[in-house]
Amino acid sequence: MSNARKIIIDTDPGQDDAAAIMLALGSPEEIDVLGITTVAGNVPLTLTARNARIVCELCGRTDVKIFAGADRPVARPLVTAEHVHGKTGLDGPELSEPTMPLEEQHAVDFIIATLSAEAPGAVTLCTLGPLTNIALALTKAPEIAPRVRELVMMGGGFFEGGNITPAAEFNVFVDPEAAEIVFSSGIPIVMMPLDVTHRVLTHKARVEKIRAIGSPAAVALAEMLEFFERFDIEKYGTDGGPLHDPTVIAYLLRPELFTGRDCNVEIETTSALTTGMTVVDWWQVTGREHNAMVMRHIDDEGFFDLLTDRLARI
Amino acid sequence: MSNARKIIIDTDPGQDDAAAIMLALGSPEEIDVLGITTVAGNVPLTLTARNARIVCELCGRTDVKIFAGADRPVARPLVTAEHVHGKTGLDGPELSEPTMPLEEQHAVDFIIATLSAEAPGAVTLCTLGPLTNIALALTKAPEIAPRVRELVMMGGGFFEGGNITPAAEFNVFVDPEAAEIVFSSGIPIVMMPLDVTHRVLTHKARVEKIRAIGSPAAVALAEMLEFFERFDIEKYGTDGGPLHDPTVIAYLLRPELFTGRDCNVEIETTSALTTGMTVVDWWQVTGREHNAMVMRHIDDEGFFDLLTDRLARI
Amino acid sequence: MSNARKIIIDTDPGQDDAAAIMLALGSPEEIDVLGITTVAGNVPLTLTARNARIVCELCGRTDVKIFAGADRPVARPLVTAEHVHGKTGLDGPELSEPTMPLEEQHAVDFIIATLSAEAPGAVTLCTLGPLTNIALALTKAPEIAPRVRELVMMGGGFFEGGNITPAAEFNVFVDPEAAEIVFSSGIPIVMMPLDVTHRVLTHKARVEKIRAIGSPAAVALAEMLEFFERFDIEKYGTDGGPLHDPTVIAYLLRPELFTGRDCNVEIETTSALTTGMTVVDWWQVTGREHNAMVMRHIDDEGFFDLLTDRLARI
Amino acid sequence: MSNARKIIIDTDPGQDDAAAIMLALGSPEEIDVLGITTVAGNVPLTLTARNARIVCELCGRTDVKIFAGADRPVARPLVTAEHVHGKTGLDGPELSEPTMPLEEQHAVDFIIATLSAEAPGAVTLCTLGPLTNIALALTKAPEIAPRVRELVMMGGGFFEGGNITPAAEFNVFVDPEAAEIVFSSGIPIVMMPLDVTHRVLTHKARVEKIRAIGSPAAVALAEMLEFFERFDIEKYGTDGGPLHDPTVIAYLLRPELFTGRDCNVEIETTSALTTGMTVVDWWQVTGREHNAMVMRHIDDEGFFDLLTDRLARI
Repeated sequence: MSNARKIIIDTDPGQDDAAAIMLALGSPEEIDVLGITTVAGNVPLTLTARNARIVCELCGRTDVKIFAGADRPVARPLVTAEHVHGKTGLDGPELSEPTMPLEEQHAVDFIIATLSAEAPGAVTLCTLGPLTNIALALTKAPEIAPRVRELVMMGGGFFEGGNITPAAEFNVFVDPEAAEIVFSSGIPIVMMPLDVTHRVLTHKARVEKIRAIGSPAAVALAEMLEFFERFDIEKYGTDGGPLHDPTVIAYLLRPELFTGRDCNVEIETTSALTTGMTVVDWWQVTGREHNAMVMRHIDDEGFFDLLTDRLARI
Repeated sequence: MSNARKIIIDTDPGQDDAAAIMLALGSPEEIDVLGITTVAGNVPLTLTARNARIVCELCGRTDVKIFAGADRPVARPLVTAEHVHGKTGLDGPELSEPTMPLEEQHAVDFIIATLSAEAPGAVTLCTLGPLTNIALALTKAPEIAPRVRELVMMGGGFFEGGNITPAAEFNVFVDPEAAEIVFSSGIPIVMMPLDVTHRVLTHKARVEKIRAIGSPAAVALAEMLEFFERFDIEKYGTDGGPLHDPTVIAYLLRPELFTGRDCNVEIETTSALTTGMTVVDWWQVTGREHNAMVMRHIDDEGFFDLLTDRLARI
Repeated sequence: MSNARKIIIDTDPGQDDAAAIMLALGSPEEIDVLGITTVAGNVPLTLTARNARIVCELCGRTDVKIFAGADRPVARPLVTAEHVHGKTGLDGPELSEPTMPLEEQHAVDFIIATLSAEAPGAVTLCTLGPLTNIALALTKAPEIAPRVRELVMMGGGFFEGGNITPAAEFNVFVDPEAAEIVFSSGIPIVMMPLDVTHRVLTHKARVEKIRAIGSPAAVALAEMLEFFERFDIEKYGTDGGPLHDPTVIAYLLRPELFTGRDCNVEIETTSALTTGMTVVDWWQVTGREHNAMVMRHIDDEGFFDLLTDRLARI
Repeated sequence: MSNARKIIIDTDPGQDDAAAIMLALGSPEEIDVLGITTVAGNVPLTLTARNARIVCELCGRTDVKIFAGADRPVARPLVTAEHVHGKTGLDGPELSEPTMPLEEQHAVDFIIATLSAEAPGAVTLCTLGPLTNIALALTKAPEIAPRVRELVMMGGGFFEGGNITPAAEFNVFVDPEAAEIVFSSGIPIVMMPLDVTHRVLTHKARVEKIRAIGSPAAVALAEMLEFFERFDIEKYGTDGGPLHDPTVIAYLLRPELFTGRDCNVEIETTSALTTGMTVVDWWQVTGREHNAMVMRHIDDEGFFDLLTDRLARI
């Protein structure tokens, strides 16, 4: 019997989501991907559902179950980020349309059904995009909240500010009401904010190591990252772009790569100026209850070693 | 083949919801109740799901399909109104626990499935409580919006102010984000605000006419209304309380009882002071697009004649 | 020694402000106008300071002291209402530029100095425009608050909704932060909202009675009102327009013309949708402390009799 | 004729305000203090007006003109910070009550009169507390804005987060509406946020160098700093506390100690969660107009050398 950790990946690929999915699929002894649920975010839902299948096919894993979920946020119109990810979300390499099927079940119902069927505390939710699907599942079936082992999310930012606005990171900005539902759900949360992910840069040498693996997945990912990083290189003047989403999977595999602090996090949902901000009480000035482990530092060399190692196993 | 109008009643009974359900069930030639979906609102979900079944049993209609839906709003904690409706929501008469079953399907899925299965434009949504179920259905399956014939709702208030706060009516206050989703969905909306429902008072003579019908449903309703009205009598000093929810069904049966105006309505969701307010641009000062027919006047005698007549047919 | 009530009129004339000033100047035995302070509102400050002098000259009262105050709100850019009042604020009659001087002292300093010099409880503030000057005086010299006898204001609206937006009346909308300062100051407030002033319509016969007085002031006022009313006639389809501001002075002369209720009033300052709304807890649902007498009904015939009578005395 | 730069110091002393005033008074050849205006902030107005005089007396400068200003923010109740500064605001040393007089003129009127009397572009405003006095002066006399050479302020924070709440720095939090008025005034602004001031720590050796100067001012300041730093040492675990306010004066003397970026800064005024946040568009993601030079780095050794040197000249 497998000891692999059971996870659902909720995602809006996105080149960095692709890297995260590959990292998970390259670690079958430690991670059991029960399903991939897609959500509108970086690009619209039809594309994220398409892209998740492309990534699985690149990894030769047409057995992975992929579900389409919400095509817009809980309580707002959708905002997307083609200016970062390109028109398809996976711009960069030449990619064929996927042939593996999309499951018929709605992502929200898959999440509810899986958490209800598996043992309490067995399933970890890994979220790489807006938290819409998770929030809808929690609203439709609140009884699943205490059955979640942990929710590890890429999203938010604090000392680093935001990326889509000065105050807000994209994933939380797109669906702040969903984030608020998740952060007040009582589910144990581990948050990978921009403070961490901006430390994980796709230096040229790192991308070349990935390409050198030579597999279709690795080569495609290298080409994706080259496309993806151009936006942040221009914006921040850094060598390479931040590789946000794989930090979530890396945390499952090597939590010791990260350090952070147990904090209160509140989500700004009312102000036009600061909507989507994750207000982290890092210095404990409010007395509000802790509801998340907020990561702040990462061993980025260790992270890239892990990523490259696991990509090579696909 | 029946010409009856196909409706789904979404409700959080509530004594006045009971009156609305009875009015619909007493009008089988004109109204075909495809199902009753329940939501948390006046009282928690377990009670509203119970109460809907009690009302159907009082009417001898154990064939009606009843579905439980959301047990809390889309993006906030639940607020209830036991101070108005009593501990059970149907306080007043002696009532037995229901024996008819609750459907297994989630209310949101029933709404989606029904709108998908019936012909476009065939189904009317009648909402008597917070709009949570409708909003969740629209978020999960946005393709149903253009298939809705009309959404007739009790909720909001403008010239009359609010009832739960100075600015907000209860149904919209409880789930303003859901209301915002519905009002921006493009579905044709008919709104029965407090401006209408506060004109529909349960004068003693009117309640006695209902009791005099003598059927179990009518007698129970008379007792419910006596309980229900005490709150508003004390608050407003009126003779009788406002009978909010049956105006929705009455509109389907006798639209000529109502007059109103095609307007823009926006929902306040950000301010602590005015959250849940339905900002009606009655005087057309904003240039915003019309999205609802807002009713303002009702022929209250005609309404009570209709209600009494139909209760007698059950 | 005079028993006349000492008042400061704070105003942004405006045709209806002109009527209010005339009503005060026509009642010298009952009202002692210590000064007129002007503020930006209906039109910019340079025009309101000009218009106040024109009105005093029309009344032959070049002895009245007139002070210019704030030329924009406490914490926002200025919004004006030329669409209602015309380009000058007194559009309608032919008017000459005023020759009487403007005082050098700033309106805010005049208000502070007068309240400090007069006996505690001696001075009533009558406000016909945004509350900017009063708020600035209270912020600069908070010790004056308990020295004010009463502040009688035209502003706000509740059951009637707003006029500049669906939720907000113009005077409060223009400077909601100022209104919030005044409503939390502890000064006894009497509020004349749209609910009252929309009952005071310049029917043709009423305007003709004013014109028939034949004095320069009365004739000019009649012509002003004809200009002024066209906006509301078109908007509301009424016979005549609402004569807002003189209700403030009428209340000093004949309080028995008005009925209202002691209430809590809060000012909406945060929401884009409802900013400037006066949230009146008419039905006492909040438990918040009463801070204003909110008028709701007026004897409009009695009001016009009073106005016509006093105009004839000028 | 002196070439010293003419400044008004607007302040709410506070131990670090004391250091700033001393730094200015120790630099008479470069800085001409036209007046010190006091405001409610760290402690109430009566104490800040007292403390400013104590500091001037410690420096033997009873000739400095000191004015009391606003005793509360523009549009909110006052919040103070005795938990940081102690009951008097200058807790630490034994201090006598001041004997030098307070000017009779209101601080706001002094600011207006000085800017009107001096040549355009001659006067720099140095603000060490909430911006209430400046905002009131701008509202009362908007014509002074283009006459200000520069406003150098301690306040705000961005990458460092806040100190009074997770998102807001104290000075801006106390009067966000005032800050908004200042940031939209067109006055050239230099902002010293927590990002700078948290780099300026009162290491033990630095405090000892100050004490070693041996003058009454220096010794008292050393004792003040020892009291002041205990709060931040406990909170942040640093060696010494941040010496916020003197950075403002240091910038006038040695601008080359600082580096920053010309940015847009907006002030959050509506959200309960993030009120008082200075939203700095450091990465230029919004296209909003630049309105402030936001400092981010400081040569802290150079700063302490400067401070110690000038304290020795008093």
